[in-house]
Amino acid sequence: MALPRYAYLGPAGTFTEAALRQVVSPDDAEYLPQTDVTSAIAAVRSGRADFAVVAIESTAEGGVTATLDSLATGEPLVLLREVLVPVQFTLAAAPGVAIADVRRVSAHPHAWVQCRRWLAAHLPDAVHVPATSNTAPAALIASGSTALPFDAALVPPPAVETYGLTALAEHVADNATAVTRFVVIGHPGDVPPPTGADKTTLVVHLPDNEAGALLAMLEQFAARGVNLSRIESRPIGDSLGRYSFSIDAEGHILDERVGEAIMGLHRRCPYVRFLGSYPRADEVAPTVHLGTADADFVEARAWLRAVRDGAAT
Amino acid sequence: MALPRYAYLGPAGTFTEAALRQVVSPDDAEYLPQTDVTSAIAAVRSGRADFAVVAIESTAEGGVTATLDSLATGEPLVLLREVLVPVQFTLAAAPGVAIADVRRVSAHPHAWVQCRRWLAAHLPDAVHVPATSNTAPAALIASGSTALPFDAALVPPPAVETYGLTALAEHVADNATAVTRFVVIGHPGDVPPPTGADKTTLVVHLPDNEAGALLAMLEQFAARGVNLSRIESRPIGDSLGRYSFSIDAEGHILDERVGEAIMGLHRRCPYVRFLGSYPRADEVAPTVHLGTADADFVEARAWLRAVRDGAAT
Amino acid sequence: MALPRYAYLGPAGTFTEAALRQVVSPDDAEYLPQTDVTSAIAAVRSGRADFAVVAIESTAEGGVTATLDSLATGEPLVLLREVLVPVQFTLAAAPGVAIADVRRVSAHPHAWVQCRRWLAAHLPDAVHVPATSNTAPAALIASGSTALPFDAALVPPPAVETYGLTALAEHVADNATAVTRFVVIGHPGDVPPPTGADKTTLVVHLPDNEAGALLAMLEQFAARGVNLSRIESRPIGDSLGRYSFSIDAEGHILDERVGEAIMGLHRRCPYVRFLGSYPRADEVAPTVHLGTADADFVEARAWLRAVRDGAAT
Amino acid sequence: MALPRYAYLGPAGTFTEAALRQVVSPDDAEYLPQTDVTSAIAAVRSGRADFAVVAIESTAEGGVTATLDSLATGEPLVLLREVLVPVQFTLAAAPGVAIADVRRVSAHPHAWVQCRRWLAAHLPDAVHVPATSNTAPAALIASGSTALPFDAALVPPPAVETYGLTALAEHVADNATAVTRFVVIGHPGDVPPPTGADKTTLVVHLPDNEAGALLAMLEQFAARGVNLSRIESRPIGDSLGRYSFSIDAEGHILDERVGEAIMGLHRRCPYVRFLGSYPRADEVAPTVHLGTADADFVEARAWLRAVRDGAAT
Repeated sequence: MALPRYAYLGPAGTFTEAALRQVVSPDDAEYLPQTDVTSAIAAVRSGRADFAVVAIESTAEGGVTATLDSLATGEPLVLLREVLVPVQFTLAAAPGVAIADVRRVSAHPHAWVQCRRWLAAHLPDAVHVPATSNTAPAALIASGSTALPFDAALVPPPAVETYGLTALAEHVADNATAVTRFVVIGHPGDVPPPTGADKTTLVVHLPDNEAGALLAMLEQFAARGVNLSRIESRPIGDSLGRYSFSIDAEGHILDERVGEAIMGLHRRCPYVRFLGSYPRADEVAPTVHLGTADADFVEARAWLRAVRDGAAT
Repeated sequence: MALPRYAYLGPAGTFTEAALRQVVSPDDAEYLPQTDVTSAIAAVRSGRADFAVVAIESTAEGGVTATLDSLATGEPLVLLREVLVPVQFTLAAAPGVAIADVRRVSAHPHAWVQCRRWLAAHLPDAVHVPATSNTAPAALIASGSTALPFDAALVPPPAVETYGLTALAEHVADNATAVTRFVVIGHPGDVPPPTGADKTTLVVHLPDNEAGALLAMLEQFAARGVNLSRIESRPIGDSLGRYSFSIDAEGHILDERVGEAIMGLHRRCPYVRFLGSYPRADEVAPTVHLGTADADFVEARAWLRAVRDGAAT
Repeated sequence: MALPRYAYLGPAGTFTEAALRQVVSPDDAEYLPQTDVTSAIAAVRSGRADFAVVAIESTAEGGVTATLDSLATGEPLVLLREVLVPVQFTLAAAPGVAIADVRRVSAHPHAWVQCRRWLAAHLPDAVHVPATSNTAPAALIASGSTALPFDAALVPPPAVETYGLTALAEHVADNATAVTRFVVIGHPGDVPPPTGADKTTLVVHLPDNEAGALLAMLEQFAARGVNLSRIESRPIGDSLGRYSFSIDAEGHILDERVGEAIMGLHRRCPYVRFLGSYPRADEVAPTVHLGTADADFVEARAWLRAVRDGAAT
Repeated sequence: MALPRYAYLGPAGTFTEAALRQVVSPDDAEYLPQTDVTSAIAAVRSGRADFAVVAIESTAEGGVTATLDSLATGEPLVLLREVLVPVQFTLAAAPGVAIADVRRVSAHPHAWVQCRRWLAAHLPDAVHVPATSNTAPAALIASGSTALPFDAALVPPPAVETYGLTALAEHVADNATAVTRFVVIGHPGDVPPPTGADKTTLVVHLPDNEAGALLAMLEQFAARGVNLSRIESRPIGDSLGRYSFSIDAEGHILDERVGEAIMGLHRRCPYVRFLGSYPRADEVAPTVHLGTADADFVEARAWLRAVRDGAAT
């Protein structure tokens, strides 16, 4: 039987690979490394992969733009699971390079941002050489090229050994507790069952350009007692000031309160896309406010039906 | 076949009788005059009458306390129809009495209030002798008693002829356009069908004692785009500061948006009583906000069902 | 030196007199009994009295209409103090009358309502003979008239002794813990100083006829963290569905959060009348939400002034 | 006299330079090109420049992360002016290169994103070689290097002539009406006077982690009738799910309604930073809702003062 195929931001040694290993062992799946997040997602859409594992949110950078934008439009995909990976970086170089020699540092822009304070303190004059992934510079060093366009690189700790590098400084990320949240992306049709501690991800456009529209949208959740754990705006891209909202709501689409809130959005907003309901990595159950448990909705529906049929109240 | 029996605040000549005549001709119904609103409502509960016609709101006094309180608790009844009656008063007396002789004026307290400014201007020293109905003093005058405890009375214009009185002054109500709203009360089970211009009456207790609870209750309506045409507080009666709200919402309980709003109240409030959906006397259709027509709810439900079953969005 | 003059709903033996005695001893004030609430309030406006003591809210009936309406318009007056009086009733009659003889019961309409359940259980066939005050029937009995239009009366307990009546049944009020809230009314210009547990009474008309207007009005309070302890609607009286709101807010007009909320109402509502800030009878201090203490407002003002002057933030 | 010094993302030919030219002619200022946005802002903080001109928002990408984050913390700076620059790109190469030869395209990541659809259609197999600025690859081509790591580059149209390149395709941006919004950054203390069509930029942290906190924050604006033209979330960076909001409000901090709304935020939110009030580039005046003009606030303040002093209402 064919193993499931997982596209991810490779190559070996990336944080994404660490996330993928949490999801499925390389013995039980075909790992398909890709050059960027967009390609990983495209691989699922094109059928070259069954699933993709991509970063969606980091402590330092917030939502991962490429992931959010790829999912917000185009052929529909859904999130099936989330995993959290601690984020650390090592400043590494080819053997023989000393930290005093470092003038140019290769780093993925997200890595650069996450080590900004350390760099300012220890390498204030270093120039940033953008890399397309966290491990690309490691691979370049490993290739033995003598004309590298940089002197050292910020890489994930496992890449030091994988690529045979020399660590110049470890734990250089500014936030010692930083994590990145990765998601497993697949095709609609396989909503994982509710676990009691779930998250639902949505994309919502507001009906118009007013502050009042955002308030009204939030009230659709509040009226059903649904809390949000993340809300981020992304430009729709057609003119300044038009925003799409990427939202994580507490609960599962099969929860009554979540279903009703989403119907409310669907009725009043020009665009609502369901991006999946899946277990929370932190396994924290939602706060269920007075009158918003499933049983309350079921009972209210039975009550309304009876009243409409003439029952006394 | 037995004629339907209507209890109402009698005797002949009251505003309530005028309302009842709008509802059904005396040829087609049995008119059962009662001494007060509470008795008229009790007659329906006890089975002595099929329907009651009672005042529920007046321009001058707002909600009619006895009606609102009788309906808010006790055996359930519902409103089936509303009719509006213009309110005017005549100052009348026994033949031979002149306005200069008038020291004591009999009047139902609501009538007294509605003629306050006229009385202050024309009979500033007159003493109020409370009457139990607008026509009770007319009947007393007609009885020919020589020891009446009053000199003149405020009565509905038709009572002058009915009881053979002398009009001392006509159109003495302070507000020339005053109307009183009457309702036909019956048993649950006969919700009139939607007409497109309906009203739904509810009694709602708030979940707790906070200002925030009233805001949250109003948001249950706002989140579904349901306007309110009347909201009045009535003490629950067990301690100061605990209120029950009497509400008229635009729309019919069979309207999707009204049904969902009422379910929201039912889930979150300790007490919700449905007092009926019925055609508006003024035939004004409700404002239907974006995404809150019945078709929007039906479509949203189908959409949610499909998404829950794995459809792409 | 002239004693202060207090108008109140007399005569001796009324609940209002009991309230007045809590406010000032008859040795230190001139008691001016009046025939009704409106007259008591008018006495202050005309200068015949310095103060009035009137009921404003009862457990059973909610807001006292005559008081609320008299204060809402006309020459401005303010509330200076509130006192609570427990409400009980005794069924009393002339000596020699037995409870089995009672067919007609004289009672002020509010008293009748408050004893409804007891009357239904013990005197189900009794007819209500409306009285203009709780003690008027006691005085009639005491006058020795042999042609009373009633057999017994519902009176405040002290009236039994004052008027030499016979108690047929005591503690006949349905709610054993009922209280009535009385207020001392005087001229603007003497706002009592804040005590830390104060109440502010307002009359507010909404800018238009929509449910949204009530929501927006409540948000003026919520945005400043001001709780409401009472909100009642009263018809404005010019057409059905137009309401004035009578509001008790927690706090004193000299509190920053209350002042700012009232300014918000004044800016957005067509009519706002301040009816006074005064100590709460129950001495309960308000909940002060995060960032809404006086010091927070003072500090925010200083901060804004500095920022407008170019200070860094 | 020394000319004012402006730091900006150089070198010659960038969109930022085009923005800077709108602000001040090179004859009247010293242009100080920087390698990135963060450096341009740092130059003002360190005193090496008087002002910086940086991109803050683009049609395609929304808020410019580096700008928003640099301003949100650290030594306070403010926005003094905004200018809009249309965004277009040309695919350019060294003389002699044909479009059929292009395999690797150098582009700043934002440029790449803005031409995605064109690239997918015309160069579906092209690999992205990230550049640190829009003109960096142009300069590399101009240097005559024979070992360029790319074959062509996406550059601003003026760079073609400046650097002596060959245009392979013009107008390759996906959105023909795309613009980027640039701001002039300076030191606090020089708030430009209100023009009647102004914008105020703020950074706000919510008091806690709940959806309700965002609603409450938006209500601080709504209660004063202040519209928002942009709201974006940025992670605070200490843990997942903690967000800072970057907000553009309509109006000037000297406007009463804006001042009061900001004081409300300052009282209730743990962190509020004022980033300036400045004229809108589009010169659109704000909608002023009922009761929220400056005169309304001034009048309400006078009214409250009078009422507190005992005036009648």
